[in-house]
Amino acid sequence: MDVYDVHTHVVPKGWPDLAAECGGTGWPWLRVDNERAAMLMVGEREWRPIQSACWDAPTRLSDMDADGIDVQVVSPTPLFFSYDRPADQAVRVARIFNDLVLECAAAGGDRLVPFCQVPLQDPDAACAELDRCLAAGHAGVEIGNHVGDRDLDDPGVVEFLKHCAHVGAPVFVHPWDMPDSPRLGRWMARWLTGMPAETHLSMLAMILGGVFDEVPSSLRICFAHGGGSFPYWLGRADNAWHRRGDLVRGRSTHPPSHYIGRFYVDSVVFEEPALRLLVSVVGEDRVMVGSDYPYPLGERPAGQVVRKAEFLTDDQRTKLLTTNARRFLEH
Amino acid sequence: MDVYDVHTHVVPKGWPDLAAECGGTGWPWLRVDNERAAMLMVGEREWRPIQSACWDAPTRLSDMDADGIDVQVVSPTPLFFSYDRPADQAVRVARIFNDLVLECAAAGGDRLVPFCQVPLQDPDAACAELDRCLAAGHAGVEIGNHVGDRDLDDPGVVEFLKHCAHVGAPVFVHPWDMPDSPRLGRWMARWLTGMPAETHLSMLAMILGGVFDEVPSSLRICFAHGGGSFPYWLGRADNAWHRRGDLVRGRSTHPPSHYIGRFYVDSVVFEEPALRLLVSVVGEDRVMVGSDYPYPLGERPAGQVVRKAEFLTDDQRTKLLTTNARRFLEH
Repeated sequence: MDVYDVHTHVVPKGWPDLAAECGGTGWPWLRVDNERAAMLMVGEREWRPIQSACWDAPTRLSDMDADGIDVQVVSPTPLFFSYDRPADQAVRVARIFNDLVLECAAAGGDRLVPFCQVPLQDPDAACAELDRCLAAGHAGVEIGNHVGDRDLDDPGVVEFLKHCAHVGAPVFVHPWDMPDSPRLGRWMARWLTGMPAETHLSMLAMILGGVFDEVPSSLRICFAHGGGSFPYWLGRADNAWHRRGDLVRGRSTHPPSHYIGRFYVDSVVFEEPALRLLVSVVGEDRVMVGSDYPYPLGERPAGQVVRKAEFLTDDQRTKLLTTNARRFLEH
Repeated sequence: MDVYDVHTHVVPKGWPDLAAECGGTGWPWLRVDNERAAMLMVGEREWRPIQSACWDAPTRLSDMDADGIDVQVVSPTPLFFSYDRPADQAVRVARIFNDLVLECAAAGGDRLVPFCQVPLQDPDAACAELDRCLAAGHAGVEIGNHVGDRDLDDPGVVEFLKHCAHVGAPVFVHPWDMPDSPRLGRWMARWLTGMPAETHLSMLAMILGGVFDEVPSSLRICFAHGGGSFPYWLGRADNAWHRRGDLVRGRSTHPPSHYIGRFYVDSVVFEEPALRLLVSVVGEDRVMVGSDYPYPLGERPAGQVVRKAEFLTDDQRTKLLTTNARRFLEH
């Protein structure tokens, strides 16, 4: 029984000069400080310190062994999505990172399963890059939860999601590009409150924007961080859909709870009461171990909350550790 | 055994011309369309349709009888807080509404317990208005969760909270003034995702801003809507506090979960799995029935999720229906 962690991130150990390769300015670059540590830079700004686990397969495999994880899905770090740039720049940067991620994953043998990024601001280019990546060895795609002011119900995004369903590529939706403000600019509030709110909003956009009604039910889509705050607030959304339908229903044909079963979530909610809510609301067939490895806001040991949860039956635990991810990945 | 609903709102049936009474422009006013319906107006804009339950005590009492609620805490509608106006205007509008709310409540006998509003942008004026209201018959105070860019850890707000602890006034914190954007401006997203995110952020501000370390533990404070998304994400906050303490700890001396027991939440989360999480995380002594009556995003019948929840013991249910609110209100 292989245990899967569907939510991890990878950063290559350096990449070509993106201004030279892609045009534009203000690109991220990596300042490698030593064999074990580097600083993700954006222009002259120190954006985030990272460790070698981000790029070094042996370090990852060692941590996976320690945590009891057999297979990781390795996804890009959202900083590289570049949805706010001209599409031709985003296409080029996606190709560069997607090829580098393949190399990182290959160094882990079958245990690292690569997901690609796509230039989601240009649906045709996004579909083409997905096709190129699937042919090259990627197993799925990670997308950001919005493209500027366009949410997941944007016609271009919906076109891309239909293509994913058509070619059978699993989609992992990660929050990014969180609003900022003086109140949100402290103690990582954009990560602590902003990320769960972003995913909450985008799941509502999938439902109330009619996306689940429009895309094939064969689409396999997973929302990071336990579906953000959506699962806790499903009852509030259902109640509003019924009582203020004039404002709330949008393009949806059913109340939000109807769409349970159409999406997966990961398990990185840390505490048993939250996991219990998650399994109750989205179902034991739709929760998969995810950890956000190797970032510090992630769970270590990966999958701990699933392994320790006393409310899970053995059968349910197997689903969360293995079976659901296999179905999501068609692995 | 009296059943309490600690989260309801009242709107008086009309009020003086606020531009004439308080100065300034763009004030809310009430367009009474008939005996049962009115439109809350802001300047020329239709802000929200309301029904006579907002102002009419017999209607409220009849609904309370139908729902099995003996006592309602009646709080202002946040639209009237006026924290963004000059303090002297906010003082005047608070006096007008607080006196009108007393009249509304008096028409309900002992069954409607009034909470006042205060000009929170001016701590001295806020303390003075609270004292005036307590002497006049108000039982506590409702505050918005922020004053512009100042959160609940703002020194002026902390000064007011200390005063509330000193005079023994219970505080009900309601989200308001939610950010807007093209993505949030659809299907009431500012209410569905914005409000829970606002309360989540402000509870972090109470903790990481060191407020719970600074104010007396005698402060009785309740956060609306089940504590926003905070209870679902407490584990994420604790993990971040430990693993990125350099960025996250702020002025707090303990991890977020340490402050459980220092605050109350209401029960308006609609579904049993969410209530179960809430009771697990914040404790059976800290959850009280709240409904958001009479607004359509509230729960009807009020307290239904508490009455129906199968996981609650009889003793726990009594706490949520009665005992906890009595302690919160010192009733």
